[in-house]
Amino acid sequence: MSGTKQILALNRFDGGDTSGLSAGLRERLEKRASTFGAASVLFYEQPIEMVRGNGVHLIDVAGTRYLDMYNNVPSVGHCHPHVVSAIAAQAARLNIHTRYLSRPVEDYAARLLGHFPAGLSNLTMTCTGSEANDLALRIATAVTGKNGFIVTRTAYHGNTAAVTAISPSSSSASPTAPHVRLVDAPSRASIAAGGDVAGLFAQSVQAAIADLEASGIGFAALIVDSIFSSDGIFADPAGFLLPTMNIVHEAGGLFIADEVQPGFGRTGTMWGFSRHDITPDIVTLGKPMGNGFPMGGVVTRPEFLSCFCRETGYFNTFGGNPVAAAAGDAVLDVLEDENLIANARTTGALLREGLESLRAEFPRIGGVRGAGLFLGLDFCNEAGAPDQAMASAVINALRQKLILVGAAGQYGHTLKIRPPLCFTPAHAGQFLESLRQVLRAA
Amino acid sequence: MSGTKQILALNRFDGGDTSGLSAGLRERLEKRASTFGAASVLFYEQPIEMVRGNGVHLIDVAGTRYLDMYNNVPSVGHCHPHVVSAIAAQAARLNIHTRYLSRPVEDYAARLLGHFPAGLSNLTMTCTGSEANDLALRIATAVTGKNGFIVTRTAYHGNTAAVTAISPSSSSASPTAPHVRLVDAPSRASIAAGGDVAGLFAQSVQAAIADLEASGIGFAALIVDSIFSSDGIFADPAGFLLPTMNIVHEAGGLFIADEVQPGFGRTGTMWGFSRHDITPDIVTLGKPMGNGFPMGGVVTRPEFLSCFCRETGYFNTFGGNPVAAAAGDAVLDVLEDENLIANARTTGALLREGLESLRAEFPRIGGVRGAGLFLGLDFCNEAGAPDQAMASAVINALRQKLILVGAAGQYGHTLKIRPPLCFTPAHAGQFLESLRQVLRAA
Repeated sequence: MSGTKQILALNRFDGGDTSGLSAGLRERLEKRASTFGAASVLFYEQPIEMVRGNGVHLIDVAGTRYLDMYNNVPSVGHCHPHVVSAIAAQAARLNIHTRYLSRPVEDYAARLLGHFPAGLSNLTMTCTGSEANDLALRIATAVTGKNGFIVTRTAYHGNTAAVTAISPSSSSASPTAPHVRLVDAPSRASIAAGGDVAGLFAQSVQAAIADLEASGIGFAALIVDSIFSSDGIFADPAGFLLPTMNIVHEAGGLFIADEVQPGFGRTGTMWGFSRHDITPDIVTLGKPMGNGFPMGGVVTRPEFLSCFCRETGYFNTFGGNPVAAAAGDAVLDVLEDENLIANARTTGALLREGLESLRAEFPRIGGVRGAGLFLGLDFCNEAGAPDQAMASAVINALRQKLILVGAAGQYGHTLKIRPPLCFTPAHAGQFLESLRQVLRAA
Repeated sequence: MSGTKQILALNRFDGGDTSGLSAGLRERLEKRASTFGAASVLFYEQPIEMVRGNGVHLIDVAGTRYLDMYNNVPSVGHCHPHVVSAIAAQAARLNIHTRYLSRPVEDYAARLLGHFPAGLSNLTMTCTGSEANDLALRIATAVTGKNGFIVTRTAYHGNTAAVTAISPSSSSASPTAPHVRLVDAPSRASIAAGGDVAGLFAQSVQAAIADLEASGIGFAALIVDSIFSSDGIFADPAGFLLPTMNIVHEAGGLFIADEVQPGFGRTGTMWGFSRHDITPDIVTLGKPMGNGFPMGGVVTRPEFLSCFCRETGYFNTFGGNPVAAAAGDAVLDVLEDENLIANARTTGALLREGLESLRAEFPRIGGVRGAGLFLGLDFCNEAGAPDQAMASAVINALRQKLILVGAAGQYGHTLKIRPPLCFTPAHAGQFLESLRQVLRAA
């Protein structure tokens, strides 16, 4: 769920012509529009009513079973029984804020922080990735005394006022705010040519820093989703973010790794930033953290959090409640018990090989990128230009084959492939065969 | 949990002298400080470890049972079995975002909107009251084209960057942002004298509007917690907000009712604004909405939400998930099945009478205010001035009598009394007797 206008336009029920829909569905849609109004957005030309989730599958009201490769929140599998029972047991025992001592949240925090590099030893829990990014920006401003932020051109970092301002994909109608500078994500051309991805990205960040400093606003932080989800998924070459981090630090700014999408094992390592061999100053967490239980977090250095707290402090009523901690702890259990990070690597590699084979077969596939079970596949027209219409057609054709998948990227032409991490080689085979059939019929 | 600096200072473990604590507790506190860092705040001079909740009670690690009159989140009672089983059942069935049709969230939205005045017919679900208020500000700016907000002097509206800017109680160190104007909550003196509370409040809002307009920023909205929780709890005379709403509308601005604290029956009516016979333009919801399940919401007019969505749109990954809807629906069930709103009125009235009796007995009680089961009681020194130290001493003495209660207000001298709505006359009697003993011993 990347929330960008382009992506919504790509796979969205537009509410216009409902003549092809059943009377029952039309009535449901009208009722829904009357309660959720203009903010109601549904996937697919013909919206689907879901009633159950189980592992990699979603089941609709007619009992049809879909392979879910769209939603990266239920990362250890829809309705995983270990997570569900942890939530149920803790909700029956105690659900409270963090102003009393409470083992579940203290033990969870210690366990989670064990997955971070030395120095990143403080956790502040929030309820969403948006709240985490909102807080991260404020910490960066408190630490640096500056207010300028650098983000990628099609970034998405959440839905509060402050993070919408650094999410160009959310508000293409609005001009970029004065304190925000945009840099291009690594270019497909450069990656394809084996070009200097790291150097080019660092150079563009360097220029944006100089521009912020010259403007008098000053440079607080660079914030990047460490797999550039909304920009179109850019993972390679591993390590390409290191020179950029060094430049950020030389300029006195902070490096914020937004792990809301890549985090918790999806890329085949615990964090997306781990692949780049960097230690960010702030890491933000969300979506898969509780497998759907609303929770997020900010991990940073104690001195940075202290600096922020001297000014304002932070309290989040629901953040760090013991039910969230139980959900988060159960997610860590399942990642370990079912070897899901290794599975993201191996099954992800298998899936990627299959996509590369399809690419050899179908010239309309312009590129395959990603890491672990977070892969992107570009569609191009015959002239090699981004083809959003083809991505849209493929998404709707795959839905007919009972596979759910979305799109991303600056041009909306990148298939965004991110199934639950319990995805097996058999599921990969099913997807590859269905995609082959769809592409043959195209 | 009002998150104000004054209140934290009032009932906060300060981390300094731990010599009076057991070795085990000291170790826990050190471990906690090392993971949560400077943002870790605990209640009470000697923090308490809680392990269970049940109805109006919290139970600590030693098995001691406390009467909880502090936390207004578990509003239908800690770990209410109907809410817990609704969460458990739905979490096992399906937990997903709002881009598929889904009965639980659609039915919940329709049911919840049935509790609002005509016109307020669109619901946008969020995960927290902070997210709801953040969105409300953006809707107000989209609708009015202005960016100036008016709030009360000790208001608290949440923890994102945007709502912290309109929460003077959160950041007493910072100067008020240029787009924010502060007005005094109704004065105790005026209320005590039977003065023109409505007229005085309207007059101060009128002046703030004029100031915002003169500054060139322009007036977008007044946002008030409809029982002025952080300001010290001001509920009477019922209806006093009506002239202010009219002035706001005459100036082309919006009236935002923040129901995060008073909402869902606590004041003896479903919403705090209901007592004032007004229809706000935007209503925000949070804390008690899911009895602790992280959820919030914004209710507004379809034309206002449309206006906002033309610019940006809004999507919240966890907002409106069916588990939240199940929790929210169960809360509405319990409010009805157990007649909790009527109970808030009747038991609240009983409790208030008892507090008034104590006031007659103890001159250090300077005032008793509130509605339903949301009451405030001021402590004054012998000269009649606000006495924060006395409030703090009473809070710690009540804790020794196994009663948990906090404080609020500009001077931190107001006992903030808000038990779960299943609070009975017997609990009220227990509290009154304990408070009497504490005051006698003072």
